[in-house]
Amino acid sequence: MKILIPNTIELRLSTDAEVVIYDVHAEIPSEHRDAEVLVSWHNSPRYLQDAARTLPRLRLVQALASGADVVLAAGFGDDVRICSGRSLHDGPVAEHALTLVLGAVRRLDRLHEAQRSHRWDEDFISAQAAPATHDLYTLAGSTVTIWGFGSIASRLAPMLRMLGADVRGIARTAGIRSGFEVHADTDASAVLADTDVLISVLPATDETADLFDAAVFGALPQGAVFVNVGRGATVDEDALRDALESGQLRAAAVDVTKTEPLPPESPLWDAPNLVITPHVAGNRPVGAGALIDENVARLRDGRELINRVG
Amino acid sequence: MKILIPNTIELRLSTDAEVVIYDVHAEIPSEHRDAEVLVSWHNSPRYLQDAARTLPRLRLVQALASGADVVLAAGFGDDVRICSGRSLHDGPVAEHALTLVLGAVRRLDRLHEAQRSHRWDEDFISAQAAPATHDLYTLAGSTVTIWGFGSIASRLAPMLRMLGADVRGIARTAGIRSGFEVHADTDASAVLADTDVLISVLPATDETADLFDAAVFGALPQGAVFVNVGRGATVDEDALRDALESGQLRAAAVDVTKTEPLPPESPLWDAPNLVITPHVAGNRPVGAGALIDENVARLRDGRELINRVG
Repeated sequence: MKILIPNTIELRLSTDAEVVIYDVHAEIPSEHRDAEVLVSWHNSPRYLQDAARTLPRLRLVQALASGADVVLAAGFGDDVRICSGRSLHDGPVAEHALTLVLGAVRRLDRLHEAQRSHRWDEDFISAQAAPATHDLYTLAGSTVTIWGFGSIASRLAPMLRMLGADVRGIARTAGIRSGFEVHADTDASAVLADTDVLISVLPATDETADLFDAAVFGALPQGAVFVNVGRGATVDEDALRDALESGQLRAAAVDVTKTEPLPPESPLWDAPNLVITPHVAGNRPVGAGALIDENVARLRDGRELINRVG
Repeated sequence: MKILIPNTIELRLSTDAEVVIYDVHAEIPSEHRDAEVLVSWHNSPRYLQDAARTLPRLRLVQALASGADVVLAAGFGDDVRICSGRSLHDGPVAEHALTLVLGAVRRLDRLHEAQRSHRWDEDFISAQAAPATHDLYTLAGSTVTIWGFGSIASRLAPMLRMLGADVRGIARTAGIRSGFEVHADTDASAVLADTDVLISVLPATDETADLFDAAVFGALPQGAVFVNVGRGATVDEDALRDALESGQLRAAAVDVTKTEPLPPESPLWDAPNLVITPHVAGNRPVGAGALIDENVARLRDGRELINRVG
């Protein structure tokens, strides 16, 4: 069996199949058109359509992106199975979300500013040890709410629990998921009233547009923390700035913004106690090699494939 | 039963005993000298010695600090049990260590600098997605070594493992601790050669003085990450700067320095890719209320006390 892997990513494979690296911006060379598996990552749609016509023995296209839309639209035959890289992106997004949550709670941004001015931040030392403000500087004993409780939240929630947080979710429907209590979004106000740290992993849809607005930030206790690793379209950015400026939010961190890249003139850059990262939570298919190995093995054995979408 | 708790910390107690707050910088008022339990946190030694003489019914002094040296030296009677707050500090130090590790691997410092200049860091986006450098931006699949494998490491290691890291320790003696393989420090070079992220939680002793020197940094693979939440005396700071300047270390984060506070003129402040936090990992007795409740219950029942040191 021959597997074509793209030149856009370095993969560690354990399969004993023949592995050939191809250029995503060129035709598949004629001597490799006998491949049975094609892996895609940042392919040009044009050459993907070309591959769909020129690989007669192809049985599986394994996309590494979370969505396989481009592959599904490329015109592969009905006998070619298509799998997405959906499960590869949960870990990386959860890792970046945890980084932003810890950075916001432990205030790495503030300490970084102190370092820039060669200042040992005695005020921080006092504040985190002071009776009245002690709880603001740790996840231990805090209440964390994750809005949008799918596969990313299922990875993130146990890590927050291990740090001592009481974690629950908000989603369209209530229930217990991965051992965590998830409330229906119709009950959001009551859940928010008791939330120290609010994390969004919501996608951009008609229903979530500007969901995080003045009313949501106002429903949180004063001094809450907000972290967004979902989509920028879900946040009313003027309301976010207002909530930070008034102190309603003590700190916030967003990996996504309404307009990306965020324009240099955006006032969001300088909002107080806000950390902005440039949409870097995802786009890292961690564990891609193991997924390919597993799906190749399953293909050979005729078993059900992981992340099959077509 | 009457419990005296200090005015230097806010505690949540569930005990049904009578709880009285006292001033750590004054004599215990005469109407409260019938207390049976005294909790200490940032007490002045003078008034602690005073309390040792004036509380005839005292049965337990519960210190909240990691060490109970000041309490042990205050002259309490042989019939007074003394317990430290040792177990309270593992979680907070592990939490800060995890924050520094994630901040260093996900390069929050670099992204913070980009934010200051209103710059969407496209180079970071490319680097973390590029085949050759992809692995540098995640703990998933990385090898993490914790040097000094006691109770803090036992809290930290499972969280790193949950993020996908292969975690092992270095200590004076080899063995399996809390489910992790710990190597003897005589084998350190071999362990370091295979380490992506090196974390120190070592105390300051004669043996650990300047342990992290040019030889140790040189034994790591090029581009490793170093994090210190132990003590500043363990690090040769000139060697640390050299290793950062040469790129031998890709990034580092230290919560402790040889001289604290670090003087404004120290060249360490501006070492490239170094994050400095002002010794804030500890000094936060998280869960103090629960420890007091538990030890009070045990005292009543005549059971063995937690963290007993005298």
